[in-house]
Amino acid sequence: MSALVLDGKALAQKTEEELSARVVKLKEKSGGQTPILATILVGDDPASATYVKMKGNACRRIGMDSLQVELPSSTTTEELLNKIEELNENPNVHGILLQHPVPEQIDERACFDAIRLDKDVDGVTCLGFGRMAMGEEAYGCATPKGIMRLLEAYEIELEGKHAVVVGRSPILGKPMAAMLLNANATVTICHSRTRDLADHIRRADIVVGAVGRPEFIKAEWIKDGAVVVDAGYHPGGVGDIELAPLVDRVAAYTPVPGGVGPMTINTLIYQSVDSGERKMG
Amino acid sequence: MSALVLDGKALAQKTEEELSARVVKLKEKSGGQTPILATILVGDDPASATYVKMKGNACRRIGMDSLQVELPSSTTTEELLNKIEELNENPNVHGILLQHPVPEQIDERACFDAIRLDKDVDGVTCLGFGRMAMGEEAYGCATPKGIMRLLEAYEIELEGKHAVVVGRSPILGKPMAAMLLNANATVTICHSRTRDLADHIRRADIVVGAVGRPEFIKAEWIKDGAVVVDAGYHPGGVGDIELAPLVDRVAAYTPVPGGVGPMTINTLIYQSVDSGERKMG
Repeated sequence: MSALVLDGKALAQKTEEELSARVVKLKEKSGGQTPILATILVGDDPASATYVKMKGNACRRIGMDSLQVELPSSTTTEELLNKIEELNENPNVHGILLQHPVPEQIDERACFDAIRLDKDVDGVTCLGFGRMAMGEEAYGCATPKGIMRLLEAYEIELEGKHAVVVGRSPILGKPMAAMLLNANATVTICHSRTRDLADHIRRADIVVGAVGRPEFIKAEWIKDGAVVVDAGYHPGGVGDIELAPLVDRVAAYTPVPGGVGPMTINTLIYQSVDSGERKMG
Repeated sequence: MSALVLDGKALAQKTEEELSARVVKLKEKSGGQTPILATILVGDDPASATYVKMKGNACRRIGMDSLQVELPSSTTTEELLNKIEELNENPNVHGILLQHPVPEQIDERACFDAIRLDKDVDGVTCLGFGRMAMGEEAYGCATPKGIMRLLEAYEIELEGKHAVVVGRSPILGKPMAAMLLNANATVTICHSRTRDLADHIRRADIVVGAVGRPEFIKAEWIKDGAVVVDAGYHPGGVGDIELAPLVDRVAAYTPVPGGVGPMTINTLIYQSVDSGERKMG
């Protein structure tokens, strides 16, 4: 039996077509106004610059604009907070993305949390996380929300299933666990201090790899018929899970690349269009 | 081997002595000003009235004052929000408790979330939850935080242990899971849709019963040497866990009553004194 491939790239492309149509309508309704995502890049990390560029490109592909803010690596917390406040107040800005990580001298948490809830389309604030976890309206953190959208598109049943999330970062493992719980899965969160990780994973109906270490999760730990979600991406095109031996014996899996990755940016623009519709519609 | 009894009543009493001493100091420092917890009771539910009275009494035992706000059962969301805003702005109020549940016509979530973070000494806001879950400073939700304080007082090791939380309510199961995760436990959250609950509980080093159903969790599901925490309280003096058969074969357990119960109010006043010290000290 061949596993179902959870094709994030294909879903992202299909979603972009739908989003393009929604942006066209939005422009018509608002007399030509374009929804705008503000992106903030602090410093000159080349990987961060590439991500910001990709996000700007995704906006343009669906007819949105991006307002690209670039700040020097010497930026202070206060300067960044002032810039975020300015974007919060700017009625032409419908979403704000602060590219992670920011230079060391900046209080990143304070800056993330300064983003106003209704513009937090990347889902990075403590308030947005708390609201989402409590089942209140809020934009989801982009990567885990992208994973949920992917699982939903492929009609993967979550209710009553045992999901094991490996990793507990603020923008991946923790919101992922909360979202799976809200979808009525039984959720176990494993991390660096977990004993017998293999033992936990062996029992999982759904495994989410979110550790950030190449092929850290071994294929032999994963049971037949499981659903495998790999949020990692490392040099050589491998993820957090040893995927190759699994493709014939699991129920479904996200390929690396082309699985979770495309859904992250897709969710960012998806939520930006939603914000545009709420503010301009 | 007899199990360790996690005596919440004794710990609460001991803590009250310490808190009394801190309040005395605080009054000296501030020229006689007394820290104040505002309690809001909406409607005439007798159980709620009793809880509010107990909380007021706890304040007085340690030398704090409580400002008792009572609103009729016909109160609207807007009226309650106005009252909360007034208490937020009142510099003599150091903590705000909104007694749950409020009458049906009120948007309870909106009212909880209107409590300003620095006065949310009962730990009920989405923002406070999100910050706590992300490891940022915030008052913890009173019952799970009380459980954490009890486990800490008895030096129960949590790191690397497998904790199974049964229940996912906003003021118990969800914050409990986040706190145990922050303490480096591997955490599984079970709930009404969980399949094979017994199977999950059998593997737990630490079991937290937070379902609100009398003796729903059976003794035979719990392994020898586990730590058993029962957050339930039902008529007849039983909790959520069938406790009697366990007392000789688990490592530790919270008695019902006298375990978790006293720690809830104790944590409320503990956090109120902390807020008083921050504001007046």
